[in-house]
Amino acid sequence: MELFFLGTGSGVPSKERNVSSLVLRMLEERGTTWVFDCGEGTQQQILNTTIRPRRIEAIFITHLHGDHIYGLPGLLSSRSFQGGESPVTVYGPRGLKEYIDISLRLSGTHLRYPLYVEEVEEGLLFEDKQFIVEAVRLEHGLESFGYLLKEKDQLGELLPSKLQELGIQPGPLYQQIKSRPETELEDGRIIRRSDVTGPPKKGRKVAILGDTRCLPELAGTLKDFDVLVHEATFAGDQEEMAFNYFHSTVKQAASLAKEAGVRELILNHISSRYQGKAVQQLLDEAREIFPNTTISKDFYQHYISRNH
Amino acid sequence: MELFFLGTGSGVPSKERNVSSLVLRMLEERGTTWVFDCGEGTQQQILNTTIRPRRIEAIFITHLHGDHIYGLPGLLSSRSFQGGESPVTVYGPRGLKEYIDISLRLSGTHLRYPLYVEEVEEGLLFEDKQFIVEAVRLEHGLESFGYLLKEKDQLGELLPSKLQELGIQPGPLYQQIKSRPETELEDGRIIRRSDVTGPPKKGRKVAILGDTRCLPELAGTLKDFDVLVHEATFAGDQEEMAFNYFHSTVKQAASLAKEAGVRELILNHISSRYQGKAVQQLLDEAREIFPNTTISKDFYQHYISRNH
Ligand SMILES: [Zn+2]
Ligand SMILES: [Zn+2]
Repeated sequence: MELFFLGTGSGVPSKERNVSSLVLRMLEERGTTWVFDCGEGTQQQILNTTIRPRRIEAIFITHLHGDHIYGLPGLLSSRSFQGGESPVTVYGPRGLKEYIDISLRLSGTHLRYPLYVEEVEEGLLFEDKQFIVEAVRLEHGLESFGYLLKEKDQLGELLPSKLQELGIQPGPLYQQIKSRPETELEDGRIIRRSDVTGPPKKGRKVAILGDTRCLPELAGTLKDFDVLVHEATFAGDQEEMAFNYFHSTVKQAASLAKEAGVRELILNHISSRYQGKAVQQLLDEAREIFPNTTISKDFYQHYISRNH
Repeated sequence: MELFFLGTGSGVPSKERNVSSLVLRMLEERGTTWVFDCGEGTQQQILNTTIRPRRIEAIFITHLHGDHIYGLPGLLSSRSFQGGESPVTVYGPRGLKEYIDISLRLSGTHLRYPLYVEEVEEGLLFEDKQFIVEAVRLEHGLESFGYLLKEKDQLGELLPSKLQELGIQPGPLYQQIKSRPETELEDGRIIRRSDVTGPPKKGRKVAILGDTRCLPELAGTLKDFDVLVHEATFAGDQEEMAFNYFHSTVKQAASLAKEAGVRELILNHISSRYQGKAVQQLLDEAREIFPNTTISKDFYQHYISRNH
C-alpha cells in the first residue's frame, strides 16, 4: 500500500507543483489503485510513474474546485483509449455527475468500460471484505469531503513450521485450513486455524482530506489513524488568511494530528508562494508540534507500513 | 508573428507529445496572443515558455474532442487567478458554450475578466483593421473547423531620409503624414504619403486546420497562403485508416500544400505510434511531395516571415 503524490500544489499549477492528485496503489492487497482528486495534468503526471490507469478502480473527489477535477474527463477518456475495461466508480460531491456527463458527451467520448458516478453524503460509502470507506464533511465554502479508509484486520500468515510439526505437508489442504476456523483432517484430527497461523495483521487506517478550514473536532474521528493527509495552504502565522479562504495552516494541521494521535502526518496543497527554504520552515513549524510530519512534493512516494 | 506548438500529439498525451494546442503570438503586431485548441495540460506547457496568459485575446477551438478542449477551463481559470483582466473571446463549434459554462459553474469559478463564447459557422468570424479571420468547415465526424487568418497589407515605413530632403524635421508631424494620404504643411506645400514611405508590407496568411479527412477541394481557398498547419495522424500508406478515422495522411497534407501553392507546411497531430526514425520517414514522405514541410514537435517555435 503506497501513496503517490502526483500534484501537491494549491489552486494553479506551477513548475514545481501540479494541481491536486494523489494515488493509493494497493497492488498486493487488492490489485487495484484508487485516485484522490484529479486536477488538470494528472494523466500527464501518471506518464512519469509506474501507475497504470487500467488498474484504477475508484476515484474519490474531495470537492469540485477546478484544481481538483479538471483532469478527470481526460483521465477517464485516456483510460478507455488505452484499453481499460474494468469498471470505475467516481465518488464526489453533488454536481460531479453533471460535470462528467457533460464533458464526456460534448466531446463525443464513449468509454469502453462501465463508469459509475456516486454523489456522496457524509457517512459510509462502501464496505467490502477488505475496506470500509467513509466520507466526512469538511468546511471549504463549497461542499468538500475527507475520505477515511479503514482496512480490516486480516488473518495472520499460515506457519509452515507448525503445520509440518503436525505432519501436514504443503498442498491444497493449506488453503482449506486457512479459509476456515477449524478443519477436520482425513485421520479425524481437528486443526484449529488459530494454532497454525501467526498474529492477525492489523488493518491500516488512512485519512485523505480535501481543502478545508482545519477542524479540531475531527480529532476523535481520526483517533489512531496510521496516516493523515492534510492540506497546508498557509504558514503558521496566517490563521486569519486561512480562515477567510477556507484553508488551513501547517500548525493547525499538525495540532490536529497530535490531538488525534495519528502515526504520520503528510501535508499537501502547498502554495507556490512557499519555495525552497520557506518550505523547510513550514516543515519545522509542523514538526515542532507533530514530529512525524512530511511535506509532500510531486512524485513523492510513501509506503504505508503496518503498525505492529 | 510566431507560432508556438504546445501540443503536437494525437488523441492522448505521451511523454513526447502533449495533446493539441498551438499559440500565435503577435506582440509587435497586436500586443496579444491567440490560442488554437486547448487540450489538457496546455497551461502547464505554457509555464515552460515565455507566453503570458494575460496576453491572450482569443481562443479558437477547432472541434470539441477532449484532446482539443479539456485544458480550456483550467487555462481560463488560471488566467483570472494570475490577474488577467482584458476580455477573452473563445470561438468554436456548437456545444462549446455549454461546456465552458458548466465547467466553470460547477467548479465555482468566477472569472475576473469578461469572457465571450462565440459558436461559429462557416465564413467570416471577424474583421478589424489588422485581420480578417474566417472559419472553414472540415470533415471529422463531428463539427470541425479550420481557421484562416488574413493579415491586411500595411503601410510601408516612413522614410526619414526623404522627409529630411524635404526639410521636414522629426516630430509629431511625422505621425500626421503617415496617417493621411496627403498632408498640407504650414508653408502650403502638399506632401503625398506615398512619396515618403517605403513599399507596403504585405499581410501574411495563415491557415490552422483542425482534425480532418484531407480535403483537396480546399486548395483554392488556401491559394498562396504563407503557412498551412495541417494534421498528419497517419503515414502515407494508411489512407484507408485515415479515411475511416476522419484523419489525414502526411502525403495527403503535402499534396494539398502543393496544390494550393502555400509557402510552408507544418504538420501536427502526430500519433505516438511514430517515434524517432519513423517521424523522419513521415517527413521524407511529405518532402518528396512538398519540400518546404516541417513536422512540429512540442515547444517548436516558428517565426512567420513576410513574403516580399
Ligand atoms: Zn484546492
Ligand atoms: Zn484530435
